[in-house]
Amino acid sequence: MDSETTFGVMRDLVIANRILANEGVVDAFGHISVRHPENPERYIMACSRSPGIVTRDDLMEYTLDGDPLNKKDLPMYAERFIHGGVYERRPDIHAVVHNHSHTVIPFGVTGIPIRPIIHVGASVAGDVPVWDIHDRFGDTSLLVLNMDHARDLANCLGNDNQAALMRGHGCVVGGKNVKEATLRSIYLEVNAKLQLQSEALGTPRYLTPGEVEQACHRMTVDLAINRAWEYWTIRAGCQDLQA
Amino acid sequence: MDSETTFGVMRDLVIANRILANEGVVDAFGHISVRHPENPERYIMACSRSPGIVTRDDLMEYTLDGDPLNKKDLPMYAERFIHGGVYERRPDIHAVVHNHSHTVIPFGVTGIPIRPIIHVGASVAGDVPVWDIHDRFGDTSLLVLNMDHARDLANCLGNDNQAALMRGHGCVVGGKNVKEATLRSIYLEVNAKLQLQSEALGTPRYLTPGEVEQACHRMTVDLAINRAWEYWTIRAGCQDLQA
Amino acid sequence: MDSETTFGVMRDLVIANRILANEGVVDAFGHISVRHPENPERYIMACSRSPGIVTRDDLMEYTLDGDPLNKKDLPMYAERFIHGGVYERRPDIHAVVHNHSHTVIPFGVTGIPIRPIIHVGASVAGDVPVWDIHDRFGDTSLLVLNMDHARDLANCLGNDNQAALMRGHGCVVGGKNVKEATLRSIYLEVNAKLQLQSEALGTPRYLTPGEVEQACHRMTVDLAINRAWEYWTIRAGCQDLQA
Amino acid sequence: MDSETTFGVMRDLVIANRILANEGVVDAFGHISVRHPENPERYIMACSRSPGIVTRDDLMEYTLDGDPLNKKDLPMYAERFIHGGVYERRPDIHAVVHNHSHTVIPFGVTGIPIRPIIHVGASVAGDVPVWDIHDRFGDTSLLVLNMDHARDLANCLGNDNQAALMRGHGCVVGGKNVKEATLRSIYLEVNAKLQLQSEALGTPRYLTPGEVEQACHRMTVDLAINRAWEYWTIRAGCQDLQA
Repeated sequence: MDSETTFGVMRDLVIANRILANEGVVDAFGHISVRHPENPERYIMACSRSPGIVTRDDLMEYTLDGDPLNKKDLPMYAERFIHGGVYERRPDIHAVVHNHSHTVIPFGVTGIPIRPIIHVGASVAGDVPVWDIHDRFGDTSLLVLNMDHARDLANCLGNDNQAALMRGHGCVVGGKNVKEATLRSIYLEVNAKLQLQSEALGTPRYLTPGEVEQACHRMTVDLAINRAWEYWTIRAGCQDLQA
Repeated sequence: MDSETTFGVMRDLVIANRILANEGVVDAFGHISVRHPENPERYIMACSRSPGIVTRDDLMEYTLDGDPLNKKDLPMYAERFIHGGVYERRPDIHAVVHNHSHTVIPFGVTGIPIRPIIHVGASVAGDVPVWDIHDRFGDTSLLVLNMDHARDLANCLGNDNQAALMRGHGCVVGGKNVKEATLRSIYLEVNAKLQLQSEALGTPRYLTPGEVEQACHRMTVDLAINRAWEYWTIRAGCQDLQA
Repeated sequence: MDSETTFGVMRDLVIANRILANEGVVDAFGHISVRHPENPERYIMACSRSPGIVTRDDLMEYTLDGDPLNKKDLPMYAERFIHGGVYERRPDIHAVVHNHSHTVIPFGVTGIPIRPIIHVGASVAGDVPVWDIHDRFGDTSLLVLNMDHARDLANCLGNDNQAALMRGHGCVVGGKNVKEATLRSIYLEVNAKLQLQSEALGTPRYLTPGEVEQACHRMTVDLAINRAWEYWTIRAGCQDLQA
Repeated sequence: MDSETTFGVMRDLVIANRILANEGVVDAFGHISVRHPENPERYIMACSRSPGIVTRDDLMEYTLDGDPLNKKDLPMYAERFIHGGVYERRPDIHAVVHNHSHTVIPFGVTGIPIRPIIHVGASVAGDVPVWDIHDRFGDTSLLVLNMDHARDLANCLGNDNQAALMRGHGCVVGGKNVKEATLRSIYLEVNAKLQLQSEALGTPRYLTPGEVEQACHRMTVDLAINRAWEYWTIRAGCQDLQA
């Protein structure tokens, strides 16, 4: 695999857009980016288009401040700053997903913390803090529209977590690469759904911290990620893009 | 785009029928109309056919009282009066959706108010009053079968709202054009679902009035609506109709 | 339409099998029959095959006691007696669906009565009594395996209802023809789902008896049934069978 | 049918992989195996690939200890030991499914027992004990990574049951053949879902022990299993593999 070349990351990025739509993590809104493999001060992301229909021609390059390098007259995601904010603070993160997957919302608005309840949910890796844009910025559209918003969100994510909820809005999820951020986004939603159902049924026993650490490691080794990626790629009808 | 010509609004109307079916907002029942772009005293809507299979040939023109201009022997929606009632009262509304999307029903029958809990839900724009046909008309089929019913419903919608629930029946949703009414209908359902889940989980923090206003503006600018429209059109298999 | 000829009812029966599977009312199990249009002492039903793959060649003719007229070595539904039991008691019923659609089960096992909460749910027409095979037959497989079981179930259905739940098993639904029984089965499930959600959210206001009567009439006129049938037929990919 | 030849069981195994994915019992993870029809000390299972895309070429042969007989350089499921552990202890079991189907999780983490609430759920056949790897092994990744783990899980399953939950992880399901283990896995999930909904609605009446025994027998006779298998095969697009 050439997932570390610019060609490879761009291919993976297009496929990730399609997978996230096909698995119900994003709908008409949401986006995913990848840090440029040749220049850590840049990231690559689609123009303002729904992830499920993104193609290679839609990809654009941005500075970490969200300025386009090759605008081509395409509209841009208003919330692209989310991505630069995370890349700026977290050199270990090389891919970022912003989504509104349905079951993360109830946790963000109630403040009930998301905690791993199934081993695949341990892939979330760490705490999932809730960022409320209202705390520092008062009434807004809830959107992350500039670097001030973005840096405040990245500050909430902190140095150790891989995901943060955005109250009344969605979440941001990081990963060491596009495939890991995709898997983490999918299982964050699955974990939230199972937690919601379990809390309604009784008093759930969550994974212990030691279990989370070990299960997270298992879920994010290449063997596991690549198995899932191959399957999700085919389900999304992207096997030709993979080749 | 030619979305303001008669040709354009008819094309958008057919696509909206398909989108609303494909996204699960309507099933065999429900309908969507558009105010005639050349004559505000007329509206265009399909004959009595399920939205998911409506074609251009099914479109008919009505007076605001629900009288057909070009009947062609086609059956008509028994509840077409809903549309004229709204157009008559609300010159700012140019498209109307009537649907029974599933999660609005629990709110209409319990009286628990729908409130924006996610930024995309702010597209609902304003309060969502509940109209109970029983209040003024006693026992009925719950259907809006004449202009008296329709004007009472439009009265409940009032001058400032864009959506009203119909107890034990469904809802009516307006928009400045077909695309906005479609987006609003889809996210009214999403918001209801997320509100239902959040209320079961804990005590949700809803959007503040100031957040609703700003988020609504963001969700209903052309950039956002067109992004979603392009995606939903392709998902519904209508890209050829778009051309 | 020739829905009253033998050719027509057999065609409708095949399509109904496919529709019920496609709309999620039946899965691998469940069945639908029609009273023979030329001999009210006979009914027509598929051999033991999952409804979603039934073809015209699978159709068999039975006496009301469940004896096959033209067995052709095909396996038979073990629970075919349900159908004859209903036809025997209820001359007004000309089509019968037996299914295990998911949301009717919680009502059957808890004894919480299903009541119309949405106008389309009024198509259920009357009460929905719960039959518990254990009351008269003690421990069984819960299946209706002979005419004694079947007549006891038909007795519970009574003279006025169109649907009865079977505790820990599913339900039986009747209709004046195949299309009506299909529509009723689909909206019984929808109503159950909306009732479940509404009861979790608050205290629902159900349709009044007068509303149920009028809404039921509206939902089961040919205009409404045919509109839904055309749509469900196309969704199930059966438009060629319709011709 | 030749379901007892090596050729036949391998064909059924490939189809079962596809069915379990298509019916939502497995996603990117989970696996199914069959005891070798010619050597009870061996079992057959795919290499490490998502079940929905498994082909005949992916099948490998293992000793009960999980050692591959014909490795071909293919990656192996890390949790293959689950299968050998069950085959070793239970000569009556000839097929094993390990899955994370969603609704079994809330039961495993809360300790609320799964009990048959619908006749098809009686196919689960017996109690469904919960295995908590933490009890004997402390903090782990929750995965079954060796024969010690596997034998402890098989010990929890015991001599009489056909399914056990794995806390925070999923479940293991056995069967007399691939088709039965597939049907049991599907209806374990259905039963869990209906039990969750019923417990939320009221106080459910479960099947009596006598009903469970009789209904289980009915659901697992060849007539019932083959009817379901034919349908699920076609739904999964595997009719050509069946031939």
